Amino acid sequence: MIYADANGSLPPLPEVRAHVKKRLDSALWANPTAIHSLGGKLKAGLERCRAMVADTLGADPAHVVWNSGSSEGLSTVIRSVLLPAGKRRVLYRAGIEHAVVAAAFAELVRVWNYEERLIPVDADGLADVAWLERELRALGGDAAMVALMAANNETGVIQPWQRTSELCRASGVPFLCDTTAWIGRLPFHFLNSGLDWAFVPGHKLGALPGSGCLLARSPGDLRPLVWGGGQEEGVRGGTGNYLGAESLAIAVQALPAKLAHAEAHVRWRAELEAALPAGCVVIGQRHLRAPGTTLIGYPGLHGQAVQIELEALDIFVTTSAACSDNEPATSKVLRAMGVHDDLGRSVVRISLPLTATQADYRAIAMALPAVYERLCRIGHC
Amino acid sequence: MIYADANGSLPPLPEVRAHVKKRLDSALWANPTAIHSLGGKLKAGLERCRAMVADTLGADPAHVVWNSGSSEGLSTVIRSVLLPAGKRRVLYRAGIEHAVVAAAFAELVRVWNYEERLIPVDADGLADVAWLERELRALGGDAAMVALMAANNETGVIQPWQRTSELCRASGVPFLCDTTAWIGRLPFHFLNSGLDWAFVPGHKLGALPGSGCLLARSPGDLRPLVWGGGQEEGVRGGTGNYLGAESLAIAVQALPAKLAHAEAHVRWRAELEAALPAGCVVIGQRHLRAPGTTLIGYPGLHGQAVQIELEALDIFVTTSAACSDNEPATSKVLRAMGVHDDLGRSVVRISLPLTATQADYRAIAMALPAVYERLCRIGHC
Repeated sequence: MIYADANGSLPPLPEVRAHVKKRLDSALWANPTAIHSLGGKLKAGLERCRAMVADTLGADPAHVVWNSGSSEGLSTVIRSVLLPAGKRRVLYRAGIEHAVVAAAFAELVRVWNYEERLIPVDADGLADVAWLERELRALGGDAAMVALMAANNETGVIQPWQRTSELCRASGVPFLCDTTAWIGRLPFHFLNSGLDWAFVPGHKLGALPGSGCLLARSPGDLRPLVWGGGQEEGVRGGTGNYLGAESLAIAVQALPAKLAHAEAHVRWRAELEAALPAGCVVIGQRHLRAPGTTLIGYPGLHGQAVQIELEALDIFVTTSAACSDNEPATSKVLRAMGVHDDLGRSVVRISLPLTATQADYRAIAMALPAVYERLCRIGHC
Repeated sequence: MIYADANGSLPPLPEVRAHVKKRLDSALWANPTAIHSLGGKLKAGLERCRAMVADTLGADPAHVVWNSGSSEGLSTVIRSVLLPAGKRRVLYRAGIEHAVVAAAFAELVRVWNYEERLIPVDADGLADVAWLERELRALGGDAAMVALMAANNETGVIQPWQRTSELCRASGVPFLCDTTAWIGRLPFHFLNSGLDWAFVPGHKLGALPGSGCLLARSPGDLRPLVWGGGQEEGVRGGTGNYLGAESLAIAVQALPAKLAHAEAHVRWRAELEAALPAGCVVIGQRHLRAPGTTLIGYPGLHGQAVQIELEALDIFVTTSAACSDNEPATSKVLRAMGVHDDLGRSVVRISLPLTATQADYRAIAMALPAVYERLCRIGHC
């Protein structure tokens, strides 16, 4: 099996599986804030995991807030910064943002009277930060938040988030940078990033589903999304998911070794893309992209047909992000880029984990032309 | 080891551990909303788990919203019902409510201009529903929410939630009943309960930490706490924690067999309490209590000293709820009941799982008098 849906979810790493198996045989299960020694050991373990995650991601342990993943982290920051609403009413986001931010802003507009403005993106999915700069200058002090993801989850295109971050800081506007598709693909150092918040998705790094953390420069400035009994310094209630945190610490610690292969993945992807038959379009190819991801279309075909044919060859891809998979239409990300339906409906997203090999890329490069030819032959294009 | 902190957290059931171990050897890991067959299988599994949970808890599968546990469920309902604030401004809760509700209401008062009124409780921790009835009659239409837990997590005392539910329905006031300490201890049928929402804590039922679900009669009326890409019918974003859901389905299905032992636990607890030395106080003893839980004080002693002595005998208890464990003082629940510090500081909470045996109760009944005697002898009382 070639699993090429790492942007959707990464199966638990072998070292995570080994740890969880060992844990299942142990007697160390309890409430980590309980007063007895089982609780004490689990709490100490949570703190060790916190230090491990912080150390690898360039943060202070106090910056780490355990939660259930990126969607929760984004929701926490958005609510905390924007509710109750202050005088600033304009929200900026690119149309290529993840569904969490899109849904959040839609509710803030509908229920809380915010106004949303979309940062334009070019045909290859890069946000226009110069436009944003002009907007912020013209708007004065009415911008409540700017959201721009670090790397796009469908195209892999790396966004100008550092420049946007500096711009927002200079303008005094909170900047929400969704780091979900970046961490795990590219080096990340929280303190050096200049970001106020970062989002670490456990299940996309090979930790257990339902694990994750938020990094926050000033966690004390956040109000809890999930209320509780003072866990996580009062920022996130609920009994600590210590098993999830343990798995996340292991997965995060495995990152540097995996990132060492990133450059090879960029080369292997280029080889794959160069081998594509005429008529194929690689969306976002003009820009720097996170390694491992390529979004390939063949106008006239249906992406789902391509996906099914690839699956018959034991290659698992998707047509877009999982959260919009069930739409048999051009994804919102591609629509925001102005991609026509003829191309938009035809794409498959290949997102190989950084543990994939050159042989995996080559197998896909071999498979795709055959799949396209077969589908064209039976009249799909 | 006698684990008597089941109200804090219940270690995963043997059948949950066996399932997770088997899962770790499988290749079935992916994003459950992905379009490929791995995603499809996981989504189908999530739906089977949903049906299992619904079936055992007397709900419709459509009522089940997967989440990370009770704290998240309570936070979801509270925000959804109370924000944005309408004309109704008064929140009622008993002082014995869990920290989630207390923290939520405190923020609603501080940030959103709500007013909180506490439902009085008697010295044994039973809420005064007649008082609430008079209040609601006098207040007219200004009550925004009434919160009363089904069973208290420290004393086990069963609250008059059914009567409160009827009263609230008659008054048109949303009723938040925290079922966390009930489910797992007493039979529960969501549709027959008359409740609009119920809260199912995975880690207190022997499922994995970080698992759980909310039951909602009209999930579509809720706004998401965690935004996302349409998962859980738009009510809860974030990639589905399928491993957590699988563990929860197994733990919930194990409930009926465990509940069959509930009556025996009530007898065994009575035997334990009858064997306590003179001077001991069982808090809440006058009222019906959830089986398995007893809160025992010995005025003058310090509960933590008792806990440590018991732990030396391999018996694990706490002094109060985990979320307030670190306070070396009378818990908020006991303060709400008017318990004096002399007694309040001395308590230990024994909460045995329904898989415990008569021998476990007897061992605790043997241990406690010896511990008290020893602590008194060395001058602790």
